[in-house]
Amino acid sequence: MNDSKKAVILLSGGLDSATVLAIAKSQGYECYTVSFDYGQRHRAELEAAAKISQESGAKQHKVVAINLADFGGSALTDKAIDVPINSPEGIPITYVPARNTVFLSLALAWSEVLGANDIFIGVNAVDYSGYPDCRPEYIDAFERMANLATKNGVEGVGLNIRAPLIHMSKAKIIELGVILGVDYRKTVSCYQADEKGAACGVCDSCRLRRQGFKEACVEDMTVYR
Amino acid sequence: MNDSKKAVILLSGGLDSATVLAIAKSQGYECYTVSFDYGQRHRAELEAAAKISQESGAKQHKVVAINLADFGGSALTDKAIDVPINSPEGIPITYVPARNTVFLSLALAWSEVLGANDIFIGVNAVDYSGYPDCRPEYIDAFERMANLATKNGVEGVGLNIRAPLIHMSKAKIIELGVILGVDYRKTVSCYQADEKGAACGVCDSCRLRRQGFKEACVEDMTVYR
Repeated sequence: MNDSKKAVILLSGGLDSATVLAIAKSQGYECYTVSFDYGQRHRAELEAAAKISQESGAKQHKVVAINLADFGGSALTDKAIDVPINSPEGIPITYVPARNTVFLSLALAWSEVLGANDIFIGVNAVDYSGYPDCRPEYIDAFERMANLATKNGVEGVGLNIRAPLIHMSKAKIIELGVILGVDYRKTVSCYQADEKGAACGVCDSCRLRRQGFKEACVEDMTVYR
Repeated sequence: MNDSKKAVILLSGGLDSATVLAIAKSQGYECYTVSFDYGQRHRAELEAAAKISQESGAKQHKVVAINLADFGGSALTDKAIDVPINSPEGIPITYVPARNTVFLSLALAWSEVLGANDIFIGVNAVDYSGYPDCRPEYIDAFERMANLATKNGVEGVGLNIRAPLIHMSKAKIIELGVILGVDYRKTVSCYQADEKGAACGVCDSCRLRRQGFKEACVEDMTVYR
């Protein structure tokens, strides 16, 4: 055993979570990355996540299969619902029911087995204001629940849910990532990326990403099809 | 559409959750039952759950596969750890990391798609005092988090996590279940039931169950091997 402090990092393969992994690494954590195969359309993300994890020197990478598509209800998993180009006000149709809650719960299970006290997640309240499970009050409530749910919370030093991007704009995230050496060409953000990871350029996620590079004055090397 | 109020019921196939299903039904809910195939050793439970759901007249039954065994760390999923006959003080080795959190999160996802405002879970703080995620303060914290996590919580009438057995002894649960017509022969509680559901009679779960029937003065029809 060494003295490293362990952290579980939710790694989707997108721009945000790749930046979060770089942040955790820069803070000296031994990183355990986890991706979820939840029936999402944009499966190129999963391959991107595995590569990003490996190249970052993470200790271990896990892909957990969980069939959220079976429940239906989102454009990201339900093929009967089109991915919109511009979302209307309110909660977007790309919102996957309870997604962050399911993902954080599984990360919590792994963190308990590993003896990790920190879970990192790349949620963002600025660009994803329509998603209830991206808000600070949600993250705080999850952390409180997690500390009542687990051995570590009850007997140990407690558990932290870390959401370092929560108040950052996309441009700020990109600026920070560039400083930390994130290679954004390897990340996939598009809701309907093709099998090689090439982006559509028009969905909400592509639009936010493109604008972020522009505002950060960083060259956008994303491959658009 | 009829006027039924919908509820999602976590149904393991054991004594407690079968009673909870009967309670929800008696309260007029349209019941959607969900079981989890999480690599548990006692797989006869899953078959019991499907039968119990069907016979109760539940609207739908789902089995969600989620590989908690992949994380390790519990005698219930990890074959390298023996199921103990008598648990020592503290958190038992049969505790599965973050199990109820993972299960409730998935039930939350389904409830959101269904438009159900109630999730029923058969946790019990009396017999399972060693499990952190069976305590009332945990259930309250989960409910609070769930109401911040979801569309329904944010825009709708809110979500209730119902744990009607939480303060009941096993004997009280059995007494109530008998009144509601639960056929306990169909339930499987044993941590190491054989493929036909026959119980070992000596694990913690069998011991609690046997004692419950005795205290309730109800004949124990459990098949022991």
